[in-house]
Amino acid sequence: MNDIERVLEFVIAIEKLKDVQRKTRPVGLDRYENSAEHSWHACLTALLFKDYANEDIDIERVMKMLLIHDLGEIDAGDTIIYASETVENKQLEQQGVERLLALLSEEMRQPLLDLWVEFETGDSKDSQYARAIDRVPPLLHNLHGDGHSWKQHGISLEQVLAVNTRIGKGSDALWQVIRPKLEQAANDGLMTQEP
Amino acid sequence: MNDIERVLEFVIAIEKLKDVQRKTRPVGLDRYENSAEHSWHACLTALLFKDYANEDIDIERVMKMLLIHDLGEIDAGDTIIYASETVENKQLEQQGVERLLALLSEEMRQPLLDLWVEFETGDSKDSQYARAIDRVPPLLHNLHGDGHSWKQHGISLEQVLAVNTRIGKGSDALWQVIRPKLEQAANDGLMTQEP
Repeated sequence: MNDIERVLEFVIAIEKLKDVQRKTRPVGLDRYENSAEHSWHACLTALLFKDYANEDIDIERVMKMLLIHDLGEIDAGDTIIYASETVENKQLEQQGVERLLALLSEEMRQPLLDLWVEFETGDSKDSQYARAIDRVPPLLHNLHGDGHSWKQHGISLEQVLAVNTRIGKGSDALWQVIRPKLEQAANDGLMTQEP
Repeated sequence: MNDIERVLEFVIAIEKLKDVQRKTRPVGLDRYENSAEHSWHACLTALLFKDYANEDIDIERVMKMLLIHDLGEIDAGDTIIYASETVENKQLEQQGVERLLALLSEEMRQPLLDLWVEFETGDSKDSQYARAIDRVPPLLHNLHGDGHSWKQHGISLEQVLAVNTRIGKGSDALWQVIRPKLEQAANDGLMTQEP
């Protein structure tokens, strides 16, 4: 099988990301979002906010990361961030990514796996920015959707702030705008109250 | 309203692309694709095939084009390519893109509009490659989905080849692999027979 055939197989295999259901609903829609359309949205959001990144990021690398960052969910499924960032879940996702990338030639596979791992590790300036942006759309879904997912999963302001502080690590300017919206939402009853 | 607030408004406005239904179904799924998940898929497919482009393309520009290329459909809707590339439809799409981009500052708006127009015009090496890749996933949907959309709309091999020859303008290597698959599909009865 030549390389073009292998890439076509991969292009078909990753279609399954369109069938991975996330925990929030796009603003104005009555259905849950899937991880493929989320990946598009996050990628474009990263492009739009690039001048607000804390550091001088490489937007091409950031876009590539966000295009592939959720591929592990094809095997592992999407889990709500407030409960999911476990070692076990991350291992399942990495196995899933490696299974998919094995469809490609070694030459194509390794740079993509490296980018995926860089995103997950989150300690480069590009991955910190990418991880910041990845958090923005689901917050907007809750802020403009009566806190649907927060309420459904019993999430408190303390939890929301703990998980989303990473926005400030990628873009302090963006976090300064979003954080007060989250606090206001908690005041408005969109999150579970602390005991 | 500061620029971050304006960009957040835009990020919410473009969510509607997740509600634009296309004419083909992702491989293995029983529902039609939407234009947001298609945009992700096309963008990642472009990245994967970049070394097979006819010319030395700028993949960052190509990815940006593919992220925004369908935004005009939020107002204009998706129309099947075999009937839709009319002046009137393209004008509707451009008006739609301009309406959305008006949410952004002039400084952000113009480069994005320029990229969108470049994609539509399709006479740069980057846009020729982007337009080539944009055609690949829907062909795979038909090839691996019993020609569902071709049959439903009465599309013949002649029409399929006429519209998709553009793949060769962006990547001759890819077209050499895909064209025989289309001819085989016609032989297998997946398209309408010529009179």
